[in-house]
This record gives sequence, C-alpha cells and structure tokens, in this order.
Amino acid sequence: SKCYRVTVLPGDGIGPEIIRVAVDVLRLVGSQEGLDFEFKEMLVGGAAIDAVGSPLPQETLDACRDSDAVLLAAIGGYKWDRNEAHLRPERGLLDLRVGLGVFANLRPATVFSQLVDSSTLKREVADGVDLMVVRELTGGIYFGKPKGFGINEHGERIAFNTEIYSTAEIDRIARVGFETARKRQGKLCSVDKANVLEASQLWRERLTIIGAEEYPDVELSHMYVDNAAMQLIRNPKQFDTIVTNNIFGDILSDEASILTGSIGMLPSASIGQSGPGVFEPVHGSAPDIAGQDKANPLAQVLSVSMLLKYGLGQERAAERVEAAVKTTLDRGFRTGDIMSYGKTLVGCLHMGEEVMRSL
Amino acid sequence: SKCYRVTVLPGDGIGPEIIRVAVDVLRLVGSQEGLDFEFKEMLVGGAAIDAVGSPLPQETLDACRDSDAVLLAAIGGYKWDRNEAHLRPERGLLDLRVGLGVFANLRPATVFSQLVDSSTLKREVADGVDLMVVRELTGGIYFGKPKGFGINEHGERIAFNTEIYSTAEIDRIARVGFETARKRQGKLCSVDKANVLEASQLWRERLTIIGAEEYPDVELSHMYVDNAAMQLIRNPKQFDTIVTNNIFGDILSDEASILTGSIGMLPSASIGQSGPGVFEPVHGSAPDIAGQDKANPLAQVLSVSMLLKYGLGQERAAERVEAAVKTTLDRGFRTGDIMSYGKTLVGCLHMGEEVMRSL
Ligand SMILES: CC(C)[C@H](C(=O)O)[C@@H](O)C(=O)O
Ligand SMILES: CC(C)[C@H](C(=O)O)[C@@H](O)C(=O)O
Repeated sequence: SKCYRVTVLPGDGIGPEIIRVAVDVLRLVGSQEGLDFEFKEMLVGGAAIDAVGSPLPQETLDACRDSDAVLLAAIGGYKWDRNEAHLRPERGLLDLRVGLGVFANLRPATVFSQLVDSSTLKREVADGVDLMVVRELTGGIYFGKPKGFGINEHGERIAFNTEIYSTAEIDRIARVGFETARKRQGKLCSVDKANVLEASQLWRERLTIIGAEEYPDVELSHMYVDNAAMQLIRNPKQFDTIVTNNIFGDILSDEASILTGSIGMLPSASIGQSGPGVFEPVHGSAPDIAGQDKANPLAQVLSVSMLLKYGLGQERAAERVEAAVKTTLDRGFRTGDIMSYGKTLVGCLHMGEEVMRSL
Repeated sequence: SKCYRVTVLPGDGIGPEIIRVAVDVLRLVGSQEGLDFEFKEMLVGGAAIDAVGSPLPQETLDACRDSDAVLLAAIGGYKWDRNEAHLRPERGLLDLRVGLGVFANLRPATVFSQLVDSSTLKREVADGVDLMVVRELTGGIYFGKPKGFGINEHGERIAFNTEIYSTAEIDRIARVGFETARKRQGKLCSVDKANVLEASQLWRERLTIIGAEEYPDVELSHMYVDNAAMQLIRNPKQFDTIVTNNIFGDILSDEASILTGSIGMLPSASIGQSGPGVFEPVHGSAPDIAGQDKANPLAQVLSVSMLLKYGLGQERAAERVEAAVKTTLDRGFRTGDIMSYGKTLVGCLHMGEEVMRSL
C-alpha cells in the first residue's frame, strides 16, 4: 500500500496538544482504510523562533515540500508579539504559504446542528448554515510591491502597500472557486469592491469570463465586500460558495466562522496547483489555555479530514473522520468552548479518545 | 437670528421621498429652536448623470462648498450600474467627499430597544449595542496612487491599487477617534492589519503616540481587522468607539449596521477640519421601492439630527429630533422594513407627519 508522508507542524500554544490527537486519528483511520502514514515533526512559528531564530527554518520548508501533505496546528502568542516583523510567528505562516505555492484557502463555515445554540445568531438564522469561503492566499495586498515606508512631498512619513492581481492569479483562484461550487450547490458568489478598486474590476471581469466560458453550469453572482459583510449576518444561508481576494477573504472567512458559534470546530485547507497542501484549524494558538488539556481538538481532527479529502484524494477516509466527529458530538462529549447544559465536559485528550472510539 | 444654508441632495431612488420628510423636520425644529434655514436643492448621482452628464456637477460642488451643511439622501441604481467608472453615481459620492475634504465618517450603530427583535442576533447579544465607527474617508486604497491597469513581466494583464497613509492623514482621523471616544464611554479600539501591512504599522504607531501624548484619559486598544469582524458578532457590546481606515471602515461599519437589525434607522456624518459636513443615511437608494411611499425616512431624519449636532453645533435641536424619532417608535408607528406584530404600518410621508407630531 502507498505510504503518505505527512509533515506535522505543532507550532505554539495548544498546538502540540491538539495535533497529537489528530495524528492518532489519522493513524487509526489509515489502518482502517489501508493507508500508511509516515510522520515528520518540524518546527514553525514561535517555537522555531525560540529554537533556531527563524519562524520558518529552511529544514521545515524543505520537509514540507518533500511531503504529501502538511498538518499544521497553530502559531503565535503574546511572547513574540513585540518582535520585529521578520521574527514574528505570522511571518512563518506567510512564508510557508508562498513557499509551497498554496494559493487557494478553503474555509468551510458549517453549523453543527448539535451546536447551533452556541451561535450568537438566532437559531432560525444560524441553523443549516453551510458555506465555503475560497480565499486567494498568496497574492494581493499581502505580498504586492512596492510596499514599505517613505516621505511624501510635504516631508511627512508615509507607509504603503500594493493591492495587485494578474489575470493568471485571478484565473487560477477563480477555477478553484468554480470547481468548489460545482461540487457543492452550484452557486458561486464572487466578492470584490469593483465600484472603487481597479484590482477588483479586473477580478470581476475574469470571473465573469471564466464563468461563462468554462462553468456555464455554475450560477455566478457578484457582491461588493461591504454588502457581503452585511449579508453574512442578515441571511447567511443565501451563500453556497464565496470566492474572494486575500484581504477580503481574511475578513469574511473569519466573520463566517464566528457565525457558526463554534470556531473551535472549523478546519481549513490551503492548496496549490500541485504539491502538498497545508491543513490547519481556523482558530488560533490560545496561549492562555495551553498545556492544560482544555483545548478542543475537533477543528484539528476535521483538518485531518480535509487533508484526506483535498490533500490525498481519500474521500472515504475523510468522510469517516467527519462522521466520527459528529457521532462524538451526538454521544454528548464537549470541550469547554462548546459545553452546554446536560452534556459531558471532557478535556482535549479524552475528546480525542472518544473520537477514536466513534471511529 | 443666524440663517444656516443647507444644500439638499436628493439623489436617486427613494432619495427625494425621504429627504422631503427630513427637510420638513429640520424646518420645524428650526422654528422651535429659533434657527433659520435656507435650502438649496442640487443634482447628484444618477439624477445628475441623466440631467447634465456628470455624477457631481461643478455647480453642485460649488453650492455644497458655499453652504453650512450638506444633507444627502442616497445615490445609485441598476440603471447606471453598467456605466463606465467616471459616469457612475458612486463617483459623485467619492468626488464629493474629496471635494469637501470630509475625511472623517462617523457611523453610529445603535440598537433601538423598540426594534431589538429585528436583529438576526439573539436579543441578549443585540440589546444595548451602542457603538460608533469612525472611518477615514478621503485616503487609503480608495484614492492611493499609483492605481490602474498594466502588463507584467510575463505579459499578463495586471490591475493595482495603493493603500497609502501619511502621518498627517492618520493623525487627524486619530484625533477625531479620540475626541469621539472621549464624549462617549472613553474607549477607543483602533482596527488595522499591522501583522501584515506596513500602512497599518504606521497607523498603529501614530495612534499609540497620539493616545499617550494627547488623550491619556481615553483607553486605547488595537485589534486586527479579521478579529474585529468576528468580535462584532461574538460580542458587539465590548465596543464603544472604533477608528479605522477607509476600506476596513467600509466593511466594518456596514457589518456593525446590520447587527442592529434596522439599517433603515441609521444615519451618518462625514466631516472635515472645517467647512460643511455631509449628512446621509447609511442605507442605499432602494430603487425597487422608489416612488411608492414605502421607504423608511427615519435614517434621513436622524441624519438631520447629526447635521444639527456635528454640522452646526446645535446640540439641543439635535436631541429634540432624536427624541421625536424615539417617541414615534414608542407610539407604535412602523414602516415596512421595521414592521412587527401589533404595530401600525405607515408609509414614508405618514411616518414623517408622525415625527413632526412627536416634535
Ligand atoms: C496571522 C495572519 C497573518 C493570517 C492572515 O492574515 O492570513 C491569519 O489571520 C489567517 O487568516 O490565517
Ligand atoms: C458606494 C461606495 C463607493 C461607498 C464606499 O465604499 O465608500 C459606500 O459603500 C459607502 O460606504 O458610503
């Protein structure tokens, strides 16, 4: 049987605790489905800064490139918040994305029926929300040049960044958006600010052309980002798949996540044209509860499911993991972040054991 | 007694209906408070494009400059959506902002206790929300140069915009933020993306310095924009005053508005260092219900209140108008957008009459 090489990046905070659970789950489902895994654990983020002085050591990037998929937990923490830009954990994440060319970030925002009451939205608004944000991840204002600091003609200091997209960059993320929508409900909403930004005008033009030429079966709509930020709250169920640029995707995918009320349950996948993808929870490294066995490992476990599905094309194993998470919720187990009346409060490790029992 | 000159810009869609109500209210409160008004109605937006071929005719800008305040209704509509950029209604709005130098946009997001159930947020989350977004309005990526279209080194088309701020631009909006917070609960949250953008790093640096040097009494915090988009939904009551750049403010102020559940109730003020401010509802021109006497005029009436307070320094008259709107709600009158069981459904004109009765 094929042996998949998975690079494991525990990172910071609760990272090591939750990723341990996820690796165990991956091993177990592998044994059930006849898939072999070889794990290689590497440093990233604050842990890597402390150990070797760089948020993404070259050996880590090499190991990732050399593998079939990257399982990442979370990075960052107060400890490194005052570091200079190039010595901050986030830099490691940005460099990893570019280093692996993972230009498409897939972020599902799904309301688990068992947890609908933890949303701050009314039950009837939240119940049944199931959308996917496809965010461009290696372009736009995050990486555009020129950027930096200077002095203007009045002698004042200035700082600037460049929002920039080429047709090639737009076209490839557009196709991921359309393909994703096609596998879902067939509705793609492209979000931009074409009434103000030239970069958005080219975005809208390309989306429209690619939709008409290559995906006539997908229903394409366009929405301004300010309106999208509203519609997500007014009626999130109107959305199936959203595709948008890097910065708007950063904002809207977080907004969509919190609507579900259980951000501790949400995974993400970052994928490129070929080569390994990066699979990680949406939530952060939660340094305040690190090392206390309190973290919710389910977003990390669901990242394993995305790894199997989008990274390795192992749909059946992926579904098995997803089903096990749902069964575990049905069986009443909850970590503190999703706890509610009448349920069984468990820690991170115990939750992991219950998922494996459900498997 | 002083005579204030107010330029009235009805614009498009429901604009003419709602602004008529607001002008009547302004006249009435003026007669009660001994304030004289001279109104001059001018063309803007789609109406101006149709009449004279420009979304902001020079005479309109001149009239605005020559007045004490500008009362704007709403602009835009499907009809002009396919026009070229310089012939679109939005262009008129952007040019008006720059032409008058109104660099600070104040957008209250207030939940009216009478309307709390129209929010999609749970009652306990929405009830009592009362925050103010202070958005930078004449800088950043909306106007930054270079911008436009080109070809890159691979021969692909590109499009780009520049996010750029100078210390002078940041300092003046920062001061509006701090002053606003000082008059409210004394808490200012500055929103940026300083972990990625240089423009945000300068923003954060200046906010920190101005806070420490000039506003030690105001409690300043910083938040990343993705987190702010979440926190607004998770717990909007944590916010008092938010200050942010043009594009983040566009997104977050709309997000904050919809939380209230009654965007048809929300006004805004755009003000500069000196010279007339622009006062307008947050909602759009609603072309689908234009001319049917169905529109909610209350956001426009509350814009009159902001005009009195922020534009003319007439606090007592401003409070009178605000109180009249609340009394009208208490008396049970509702337009369609805020209608609920047991209340009295009225049209735009009738609602205006009831506000005047309440006055
Ligand atoms: C940490 C930060 C640089 C990152 C981003 O903005 O992309 C994060 O917010 C995310 O969404 O993964
Ligand atoms: C119409 C558009 C150009 C405008 C903006 O983006 O500023 C609008 O969304 C607003 O917030 O007033």
